[in-house]
Formats: sequence, C-alpha cells, structure tokens
Amino acid sequence: MTATVIREATPDDIGVILHFINELAIYEKAPEQVKTNAGMIEATLFGPDAKTRCLIGEIAGEAVGFAVYFFNYSTWLGKYGIYLEDLYVSPEHRGKGAGKALLVHIAGIAVDNDCGRFEWSVLDWNAPSIEFYKSLGAIEMSEWRIYRVAGEALRKLARS
Amino acid sequence: MTATVIREATPDDIGVILHFINELAIYEKAPEQVKTNAGMIEATLFGPDAKTRCLIGEIAGEAVGFAVYFFNYSTWLGKYGIYLEDLYVSPEHRGKGAGKALLVHIAGIAVDNDCGRFEWSVLDWNAPSIEFYKSLGAIEMSEWRIYRVAGEALRKLARS
Repeated sequence: MTATVIREATPDDIGVILHFINELAIYEKAPEQVKTNAGMIEATLFGPDAKTRCLIGEIAGEAVGFAVYFFNYSTWLGKYGIYLEDLYVSPEHRGKGAGKALLVHIAGIAVDNDCGRFEWSVLDWNAPSIEFYKSLGAIEMSEWRIYRVAGEALRKLARS
Repeated sequence: MTATVIREATPDDIGVILHFINELAIYEKAPEQVKTNAGMIEATLFGPDAKTRCLIGEIAGEAVGFAVYFFNYSTWLGKYGIYLEDLYVSPEHRGKGAGKALLVHIAGIAVDNDCGRFEWSVLDWNAPSIEFYKSLGAIEMSEWRIYRVAGEALRKLARS
C-alpha cells in the first residue's frame, strides 16, 4: 500500500472538498442534490460554531480523498459516537489504501474519545463499499430504516 | 388533544430520563443493551461539553415522554440537520398528542436553525410508528443502510 497521510482539513482545502462532494454525489446518482458552495463549507466546517470535522487523505502530497464526520449519541450507551457523513477517494487513487487509512484514523479518534460506536450509511446497491466495510468488522443494522422530513414538509410540520 | 408542554430537560430530570430510556429499550426488544446510568446522562446531556439535547413533554405537570437529539450534517446541502436519537412517550399517555408535540417542537428548532433536514431511525417492524411518521410528512430513505463498528471490532480497526 502507498502511504496515505491523514491531516485535518483547513480553509485552503475548500476547493478540493467541494470537488470531492460533487464527485461523490455523481457516484451516488444524485448530482442535482448538491446545493452546497464554498461559503457554506467554510461556515459549517471551519466557522466558530463548526460542529463537523473534515479530514484529508494525501498521497505524495496530493489530496486523494476526504472524510466528513461529527459526533452522534447513543442513549443506551450514554456515550457519544462518531457518525461518518462522507468518505470518498478519487477513482484514480483507489486501491492504494487511502479509504481504509481514513476509516482507521477516525476509528482511533472514536477510541480516544471513549465513543461507543462508529457508524455510517451506505446505499444498498453499493456492493463494493459494503464488502469493504464488512471486511473491516462493520455490521449492517439491518432492522433500522432512516426517515426524513425536509424542505416544505419540514416547515409545514414546524407550523402544525 | 390534551395540551403537552415541551421544555428543555434539566439535571433534575435524570431519573425520569433513565426511566424512559429503559422503557424504550424494552419496547425495542433490547433491554440488555442499556449501559447508561445517571452519571453518564449528567455528563453527556448536561455537562460543559454536552453535544446532545433533551426535551421533556409534560401533561398536567407530569413528565410523559422525552426526545433526545443532536445536530448532524449534510455535505450535499452544506447545512446542519437535526437527528432525533430517541422519542418516547409512556404507554399510559399515548394518544394525547405528546409524541407529535415533541416532533413539531424539534421541527421548529430545525427551521429556526436553518437546518436542511430532520431525521431519525425506526425499526422496520415498528408499523405504528412508521404510519405515524409518514402521516407527518416523513419519507423513508429506503436505499440507505446503516453500518456500525463497535466494541472490540472498533478497537481492532483503530489499531490496524
């Protein structure tokens, strides 16, 4: 494996982060759902109240992938956990261990922070990723389904 | 509907919160998975670094249910969202609108904070809750599956 260097993202990475977000959305067949921009990334990842963290994976000084995560919570455990919102490695750099390096790094952050769990979501048709995650010891929470209220439905619920 | 008063939880509610957590775990057929205790609840919900919020629903001055939530994030939207970790109303107080009142209150918090989404998870066999959520405008993210690394598998991944 080529050595991947993991470092925290800085505002200088906003351009490459936006690039990775768009590439991942194309892969997930939803490019039209990307509404973010450089200013929103700056505010939410690097602003004074930023609740979200971003890591950059580099090979030979080049940013090859990223991971975006935040702390979630388990009432059963009484502990925080880490939720991985996005993990992406550019196609031309796959197979070099960058994705695993990012996951291992975040697992270390979870252990260091006494987190009970490290979780993420994956599209049910994304077989290569599912195989990869299972090989790392992840298990599918097969009984659980995610529900969402957004947009006008959210505003309507808030008013009801 | 009986009027439900929604208020932020305080450390005085730790006992009732622990009671609700255990009741919900029994309903979800996993009571043995509850590892939390009063000290852990105090630290994670009310400590100086608390990242999680808890609301209490009251009817006629009695705590009848609770909701635990935190802010999540969408890279596609470039916005925070709200993730509802737990929602519970005691069986003897169901049908009085307390669950909906808690959800409407949190939807309002989401709108006030310019959140893009309000999300939660539900067990796929929990038909009454699913019907209730759909009636409020929530949609199932049917393609998405949650993966988790925890316990020894998490420590092993961190070391690999």
